[in-house]
Amino acid sequence: MEFVNIKLSPRGQLEVLSKREVSQLLDTSLGGLYHLYRNCSLAVLNSGAQTDDARQLLENFQSFDIKLLQQDRGITIELIDAPATAFVEGRILNGIRQLLFSVLRDILYVNSHLAIPAEAGESVTNAVFDILRNADVLKTDSAPKMVVCWGGHSILRSEYEYTKEVGYELGLRGLDICTGCGDGAMKGPMKGAAIGHAKQRNKTGRYLGISEPGIIAAEPPNPIINELVIMPDIEKRLEAFVRVGHAIVVFPGGAGTVEEILYLIGILLHPDNQGMPFPLVFAGPETARDYFQQIDTFLTATLGKSVRNYYQIIIGEPARVANLILKGIRKVRKYRKAQDDAYYYNWLLKIPEDMQTPFVPSHENLAALDLSLDQPAAVLVANLRRAFSGIVAGNIKEQGILTIEEKGPFQLHGDPQLLQMIDHMLVSFIDQQRMRLPLSDYHACYEIVA
Amino acid sequence: MEFVNIKLSPRGQLEVLSKREVSQLLDTSLGGLYHLYRNCSLAVLNSGAQTDDARQLLENFQSFDIKLLQQDRGITIELIDAPATAFVEGRILNGIRQLLFSVLRDILYVNSHLAIPAEAGESVTNAVFDILRNADVLKTDSAPKMVVCWGGHSILRSEYEYTKEVGYELGLRGLDICTGCGDGAMKGPMKGAAIGHAKQRNKTGRYLGISEPGIIAAEPPNPIINELVIMPDIEKRLEAFVRVGHAIVVFPGGAGTVEEILYLIGILLHPDNQGMPFPLVFAGPETARDYFQQIDTFLTATLGKSVRNYYQIIIGEPARVANLILKGIRKVRKYRKAQDDAYYYNWLLKIPEDMQTPFVPSHENLAALDLSLDQPAAVLVANLRRAFSGIVAGNIKEQGILTIEEKGPFQLHGDPQLLQMIDHMLVSFIDQQRMRLPLSDYHACYEIVA
Amino acid sequence: MEFVNIKLSPRGQLEVLSKREVSQLLDTSLGGLYHLYRNCSLAVLNSGAQTDDARQLLENFQSFDIKLLQQDRGITIELIDAPATAFVEGRILNGIRQLLFSVLRDILYVNSHLAIPAEAGESVTNAVFDILRNADVLKTDSAPKMVVCWGGHSILRSEYEYTKEVGYELGLRGLDICTGCGDGAMKGPMKGAAIGHAKQRNKTGRYLGISEPGIIAAEPPNPIINELVIMPDIEKRLEAFVRVGHAIVVFPGGAGTVEEILYLIGILLHPDNQGMPFPLVFAGPETARDYFQQIDTFLTATLGKSVRNYYQIIIGEPARVANLILKGIRKVRKYRKAQDDAYYYNWLLKIPEDMQTPFVPSHENLAALDLSLDQPAAVLVANLRRAFSGIVAGNIKEQGILTIEEKGPFQLHGDPQLLQMIDHMLVSFIDQQRMRLPLSDYHACYEIVA
Amino acid sequence: MEFVNIKLSPRGQLEVLSKREVSQLLDTSLGGLYHLYRNCSLAVLNSGAQTDDARQLLENFQSFDIKLLQQDRGITIELIDAPATAFVEGRILNGIRQLLFSVLRDILYVNSHLAIPAEAGESVTNAVFDILRNADVLKTDSAPKMVVCWGGHSILRSEYEYTKEVGYELGLRGLDICTGCGDGAMKGPMKGAAIGHAKQRNKTGRYLGISEPGIIAAEPPNPIINELVIMPDIEKRLEAFVRVGHAIVVFPGGAGTVEEILYLIGILLHPDNQGMPFPLVFAGPETARDYFQQIDTFLTATLGKSVRNYYQIIIGEPARVANLILKGIRKVRKYRKAQDDAYYYNWLLKIPEDMQTPFVPSHENLAALDLSLDQPAAVLVANLRRAFSGIVAGNIKEQGILTIEEKGPFQLHGDPQLLQMIDHMLVSFIDQQRMRLPLSDYHACYEIVA
Repeated sequence: MEFVNIKLSPRGQLEVLSKREVSQLLDTSLGGLYHLYRNCSLAVLNSGAQTDDARQLLENFQSFDIKLLQQDRGITIELIDAPATAFVEGRILNGIRQLLFSVLRDILYVNSHLAIPAEAGESVTNAVFDILRNADVLKTDSAPKMVVCWGGHSILRSEYEYTKEVGYELGLRGLDICTGCGDGAMKGPMKGAAIGHAKQRNKTGRYLGISEPGIIAAEPPNPIINELVIMPDIEKRLEAFVRVGHAIVVFPGGAGTVEEILYLIGILLHPDNQGMPFPLVFAGPETARDYFQQIDTFLTATLGKSVRNYYQIIIGEPARVANLILKGIRKVRKYRKAQDDAYYYNWLLKIPEDMQTPFVPSHENLAALDLSLDQPAAVLVANLRRAFSGIVAGNIKEQGILTIEEKGPFQLHGDPQLLQMIDHMLVSFIDQQRMRLPLSDYHACYEIVA
Repeated sequence: MEFVNIKLSPRGQLEVLSKREVSQLLDTSLGGLYHLYRNCSLAVLNSGAQTDDARQLLENFQSFDIKLLQQDRGITIELIDAPATAFVEGRILNGIRQLLFSVLRDILYVNSHLAIPAEAGESVTNAVFDILRNADVLKTDSAPKMVVCWGGHSILRSEYEYTKEVGYELGLRGLDICTGCGDGAMKGPMKGAAIGHAKQRNKTGRYLGISEPGIIAAEPPNPIINELVIMPDIEKRLEAFVRVGHAIVVFPGGAGTVEEILYLIGILLHPDNQGMPFPLVFAGPETARDYFQQIDTFLTATLGKSVRNYYQIIIGEPARVANLILKGIRKVRKYRKAQDDAYYYNWLLKIPEDMQTPFVPSHENLAALDLSLDQPAAVLVANLRRAFSGIVAGNIKEQGILTIEEKGPFQLHGDPQLLQMIDHMLVSFIDQQRMRLPLSDYHACYEIVA
Repeated sequence: MEFVNIKLSPRGQLEVLSKREVSQLLDTSLGGLYHLYRNCSLAVLNSGAQTDDARQLLENFQSFDIKLLQQDRGITIELIDAPATAFVEGRILNGIRQLLFSVLRDILYVNSHLAIPAEAGESVTNAVFDILRNADVLKTDSAPKMVVCWGGHSILRSEYEYTKEVGYELGLRGLDICTGCGDGAMKGPMKGAAIGHAKQRNKTGRYLGISEPGIIAAEPPNPIINELVIMPDIEKRLEAFVRVGHAIVVFPGGAGTVEEILYLIGILLHPDNQGMPFPLVFAGPETARDYFQQIDTFLTATLGKSVRNYYQIIIGEPARVANLILKGIRKVRKYRKAQDDAYYYNWLLKIPEDMQTPFVPSHENLAALDLSLDQPAAVLVANLRRAFSGIVAGNIKEQGILTIEEKGPFQLHGDPQLLQMIDHMLVSFIDQQRMRLPLSDYHACYEIVA
Repeated sequence: MEFVNIKLSPRGQLEVLSKREVSQLLDTSLGGLYHLYRNCSLAVLNSGAQTDDARQLLENFQSFDIKLLQQDRGITIELIDAPATAFVEGRILNGIRQLLFSVLRDILYVNSHLAIPAEAGESVTNAVFDILRNADVLKTDSAPKMVVCWGGHSILRSEYEYTKEVGYELGLRGLDICTGCGDGAMKGPMKGAAIGHAKQRNKTGRYLGISEPGIIAAEPPNPIINELVIMPDIEKRLEAFVRVGHAIVVFPGGAGTVEEILYLIGILLHPDNQGMPFPLVFAGPETARDYFQQIDTFLTATLGKSVRNYYQIIIGEPARVANLILKGIRKVRKYRKAQDDAYYYNWLLKIPEDMQTPFVPSHENLAALDLSLDQPAAVLVANLRRAFSGIVAGNIKEQGILTIEEKGPFQLHGDPQLLQMIDHMLVSFIDQQRMRLPLSDYHACYEIVA
């Protein structure tokens, strides 16, 4: 393990901090920001590292420390025992340097300047706006062109190559990329777009990563990301995606990707959002055909065939994916202009409160879910999302796994037909190795109670 | 009177407003920001106007209205019955347009995002910092070069020409200008510096105006000002001057200028500020020789001869003034570097709390002032400043004049010798026509009580 | 007399010189460029000086020398015994520095890279184009907005103020200024436009000076000029004006200004130029009313009333002048677009060869001029221009004065009526003190031979 | 085969053409530039194409035509039947668009403005300088950082990956890349550097391609190249490499690469160049170990062991290659500064005239070569380069192959020992498949005459 000690001189306006702010960041007491700031900074410093095991990485840098010094031209950051991978010839990579100051900016803003509202509703939407504006993400001088890419972190090589090709075609068309910061389908489109932008001499291409403190260590932003925002929690992060993005491409993934799809479909189904263009393409190479087939079957069976109005599935043909997104975004532009809505923030999109409110995956909450088919699609989709959220937690999130070990599998109630569809889909994901689970010894984290 | 109705499309990041902010600005109820926002905007729209009578001007535009519209590329400002002087060929002057958005920015920030502390102390200094940072005034990428120019608004023609010459020489030397926004000694140095900068091909010259809602209508910023900040009150405005400026030139003025000098001398006399370089030059043409002579006499007689360590008087010789300021600023630079203090904000300057706390010029407060000579200079100077603050109020501020009419002159207590010096100085200012008072029928607003 | 010795480090692409070029510039032999380069550089270094007597100025700097040094980042210019007025705090004014490198650029290009054609015609037009392009004067990224201002160098104070006001109104409207580099009507419009541009936050305002080696010492460019081109001779200089300008304002002047007016009218009268919009305004304050009246009378009497189609006279009303020019330029834009002609160079303008060919003001040439009224206007106007050219030379140009002293007055032949009109006009100019002549002892340099 | 017809509007200064220039470019007569201009443009339009067979490609576009139109904002290029691969969504790739205008610029400059000297010597060096300056390649505002990469076009996949890795490490260190424009070792370093630059947020990274009309069709510049210069012939192209580059990395290649090595070694051996730092690294992965071993053996055997002072061989370790180059360039910087030589053009490098003069590979010239070992190294190396130049021509250049078919193999005279070393090396290249030759049926194009 190699370590580096260094002082980073500040550049630009951002690093003008008041004395109050410096002391908040360095405050190691309970309410202080030090630990949050230190850990997010360390995550970003590991962005060059090629490993999946975030915990191990962080343990390797227990002695890492970060300090702030007031100097003549602004605030200087001092790093102690920082990962050597972030440096070349003794100097930090500028990309990582920039991300480091993004961490500083967002942690300060959210915790020192913003009052985050307690309940769901318009005030949450205003808070998400405030954070994004402070991070300079909302640009008034450009037409709609931000494409959000979702999908799994551990995907097949051929699927990864495919995400790069789609990114390349998007980049050639002048479109920007926004992802959740990690590997796989989060990284491929950015790499591809970077080449597309270079061939177009586009020096203002945006590679926007939207993260949150809970996952930034596990999925450190790759150094191509040239705009990083750390939202305070997962709900605000999801809201940021759908308000900032002008179109969404979903690449293959696992149960988590299904959860994201259900979140978005749940929003699009809301009556207030009818008539609003929102380009949504499910795209993958030949190997992903079955995956999207199953999702399509599940969505139409549960929410009705009309749900297909909201998405399009494309296998292969990266240029066609990009062309479709481009055409869709042109409609978005027209619509926003006609409605006097901002290009840079989708104020008009109605997010139902049960999507905006966090769902805690406890046995009680999951047992209480109504998974019957004879309820309005808008209600059912919200419950389905919660069910998948619980399954994801029970499978891979630390707190969820502990809960299962202690109290046994979650109990899901509802129509047997619906419950079997869910079960069937998840089993096939496991067969396709789309979920990071111990294959030999897999015990489902849920039980179907008819 | 000519009027213009127009919609101003937004440009740049600033004009990205949340729905909450728009509704606050348009809120005409008691706590709402509409009236403040409308009046400051109207003041700025009058910046081209060549008149002294602010009240008359504002009355001419009673039908003026301002609205905000959400549009695809940001917030659009709609002006109704705006002064035609702000427009050329049907389009607003870009300089005025920019000031208009500065008003929007500062009023929103101060009233919607900032919690202004109740008591004096470090938290005030942090708040002043926050406002200036939000206004993008604090630049990390430049060496110290901001020269604050103080002085009167209604000065002799020859004195006005002199301020232009000094400004020209400062501009040739790459120095920027900061003033209080109005006419006379506030405008001359900027005009001069603009020519100096042009000859040096300096396209980033700064003409910083620091105003406050209470005076912006009376002293609308001239259109050369390319950075405008509206501080919430006079105390924060004065603090902004001394924390942002790297040197101060005082041109001739009246009683108000004496008050400013006392404010600054009061700060510089503080023990914590000893050893800190702070270039201060009193400068004027031959006609101002007596003026500065009297001030010098007054200062040395009351605060001791050592007070001369803090300032230098130069009559004529504009290039020498600029050269002295330049050399002084080089010392400031060295000092800040050595002390690890920021170039862009003078954190180390100690402002005594009795300078930071507002003084209300009531009969009680003025009568309670201790104006005896046998007290420490640091205390005496604070009391002197309060006395002059009261006299200025009693002479020209609306509230002060009303108070005098109602209750008679202020009663000043203290050493007869000191009180006579004050009286003597003020009478000579009147003789020199440096104060906007009815000469024939002048009644002093104070009485000396030995 | 103060002198400065200094080395100027190069900045920007321009100063990349080959070894061949350096040795050409430093070549003091007959064909070498040293003397031309040295003298033009000295002229530019005097641009801050406030004097009319160029010869005296140059004599003061006989010891001035200029050298070129190859260094790591480009060519360094070394100045020996340079005028101190070009420096502040020991450093050269950036504006003058820039002009100095413009001199280097043009002298090298014209003498080392360009083959100037011997006869008039299209190849001259191509050469003028080449010089202007090399000087980066031809901008493809802007709409037509270059206003050429002509007029006298020694004009009344009120007339000078008027040229500033017109310049200010032009600048407010986003228009740029081009003049011949000198004082009076050459400087006022630029000063005014600079203020107009500043109020519009226009940082790309152009102040283009077009000079030639023969006059640059007598009329050094003022430091507001941010683009300087040195054309090889007076004919190319005049052609540069009319090909680069999109409109022309003529302020009051003397006989020289009449010559310029005749040059332009002669071009506009050409059949090929009919239908081409070319905004031309004669403008002055009340004091100039008679001046333009006389010119109008002369033009209509000699060339017919239809000549008034080509110009408009405005007395006072600077904003109206600017508005007229603005509207005229909009027509120019439409016309160029429709004709597929470049915005930046008026290729379509036909310059008659007798305007393009230099006229040598000898006794023979003047005596041979046909000044009879019964010839086509296009021919007459060319002869009239030559006559005025001769008179200007005989009055104020060194060579011309010597010729007159030696051989007596020029002999002008033609219609007595026409000759008297010329005489009448010139005498009134002398009465109005518009010509720099010894009033008491003036002997006309011409004789009318009926 | 897909075709596109399109008009490309101009952007930037470059495209301001005079009427004379336009007619030269469109002149299809013998001395006219049309064919040269059209063919180079077509080559550039094929830059996206993935094929080796240039002739086939060009044949596919026989109907391709190019026109120039004068328009309001500059010169517009019209393309008829252009390759569809250069377009996305009906618009040309900006990278290709830029290269297209580079072709225009260089062809015009070399053929219309420059007088290319007939003999070798300083005037050639000045002409090379003039072309590069006109192409804006010579930058005064940056420290030395241009790394020239040489090597073969058809290299092993592992070798190609290695060139990308070296490029990446160079890019991370802020170094720029210059190559000969083609595939393989010409493309890999640029791709790698682009990623390195992106991670360093370096938006001014340079990817300079230096080509010539004779090969641009066979090796079209890839679209990452953001600066393209077309030199008039191979000798000027080689001189451009060594005057503009601050260091050279040689990757594996074939006989052509040996020729390049001999050219450079021949220069470095010149007495005038002793003491001048010129970093030169031969680098490749494990598979290239033998290749460089043989070259090293050959160079030391023929030119003496001291030749090793001029280069260093590194197998693997891309970061070490970059680090060595970086250190070497720092020495170059110091040296240039100390010698007052330009950073952007190596004026001090002495190129022996027998390297600057073109060598025509005829039977006579090759037979006349003195390949004996007992001559000064400086002479021998020049003859060896000529020998290899002949072999390359005889193997793969059209004219050379025809000559061999007609007159039989070249006859090489000299020391048997030396001739066998040459033979031995070439045979092993064939065994390693480093030369594009028919393996089964290979007849050497030369005969050894002892």
